[in-house]
Amino acid sequence: MASSGEPVRDDLQAVADILGVLAYGELTAFERLAYDARMAPTLEDKAALGRLATAEFEHFEVLAARLVELGIPAQQAIEPFVEPLEEFHARTAPSDWAESLVKAYVGDGLMRDFYREVTRVLDPETRVVAEKALADTEHVTFLADRIRRIMAEDPRCAGRLALWARRIVGEALVQARLVSTRREALVRLLSGGRGVDLAAAFDRIIEAHGTRMAAVGLSA
Amino acid sequence: MASSGEPVRDDLQAVADILGVLAYGELTAFERLAYDARMAPTLEDKAALGRLATAEFEHFEVLAARLVELGIPAQQAIEPFVEPLEEFHARTAPSDWAESLVKAYVGDGLMRDFYREVTRVLDPETRVVAEKALADTEHVTFLADRIRRIMAEDPRCAGRLALWARRIVGEALVQARLVSTRREALVRLLSGGRGVDLAAAFDRIIEAHGTRMAAVGLSA
Repeated sequence: MASSGEPVRDDLQAVADILGVLAYGELTAFERLAYDARMAPTLEDKAALGRLATAEFEHFEVLAARLVELGIPAQQAIEPFVEPLEEFHARTAPSDWAESLVKAYVGDGLMRDFYREVTRVLDPETRVVAEKALADTEHVTFLADRIRRIMAEDPRCAGRLALWARRIVGEALVQARLVSTRREALVRLLSGGRGVDLAAAFDRIIEAHGTRMAAVGLSA
Repeated sequence: MASSGEPVRDDLQAVADILGVLAYGELTAFERLAYDARMAPTLEDKAALGRLATAEFEHFEVLAARLVELGIPAQQAIEPFVEPLEEFHARTAPSDWAESLVKAYVGDGLMRDFYREVTRVLDPETRVVAEKALADTEHVTFLADRIRRIMAEDPRCAGRLALWARRIVGEALVQARLVSTRREALVRLLSGGRGVDLAAAFDRIIEAHGTRMAAVGLSA
């Protein structure tokens, strides 16, 4: 634990946390998406989800490389986030293709929102690394298209998928809250001088989620 | 079905089969490896298995692109191999990290042997595509190293892992035999004029498997 008299080390701890949670988030997203691809109804869909998964893996590699550059052991940086992220995925294992798509869409969206909130407190070089992951938007279009198509084919699944999306957001927030109670340096950096108003960030994330749900015809 | 009077169409069917089984083999290997990565004991191991999985996905993309170039719908080319490959994976789901490594090592080896046997009957352009997948050998080194390390740490697991490897080869051969009874054009191309002696190819594959097992200290 860095004392308040060591701002640099404290900041480095917080940056390690941000890179750690993003890196492990990308890595577990990769594992789960690749596995969820088995439920795809066509080869085209399977390949598209696979492509999304490999993109997440590439983001992981870039984030892990930045940790190494900063002299932070990657294993140590991800450690605090292993349990919450594994728990999140264990509680949100999709049971069919539609649920896989909605989880990927909602999960990817939340991850992007989180990137946006945290990048502003990062040093310029680390920010470039984090922003690379955000640049990649074609997958979002694919996911939204497929969800809209499923809804068009069977409008009755709207209720079930809206509930499913709500569960994903709920589980993500539970785990995020758990993490924030344990990572003082992270919360201090995020809410500090150059930082963000956490309550406002939370509102922005929920609002963005609502917009995304509406875009595919689901109530948030 | 192409009659024997239409050698070109018959060959194209066989090439579609080869690309189809390789493509779907790579795609399912990707899905399963990515999922098996969750059992990795360290981030380094998880990342290494993830890297192997993404390499398999890249091979899939190259093979699928070649199918498109040849005017063969990828979905149609993979169709005959979906059930056998899904069945293979369902019957060989690893229950721990050591089993994941051995499956990846044995499975990757068998796939490479199969590539080697079939590339000689392919047209030069398709051969280049298939050989790209073979060029990539650093993953084999990683897998062999990790298996050796596990055996060094706990020599008692040698018996269990040898049995496990035998089961993987057995299941692969059962599915391969099933496929060969159904794909006449493929068998005809493989065993035809420019082709291979199937019994000899089978012997070579079993021999190569034995060599690979010995290399990590496991009995075949």
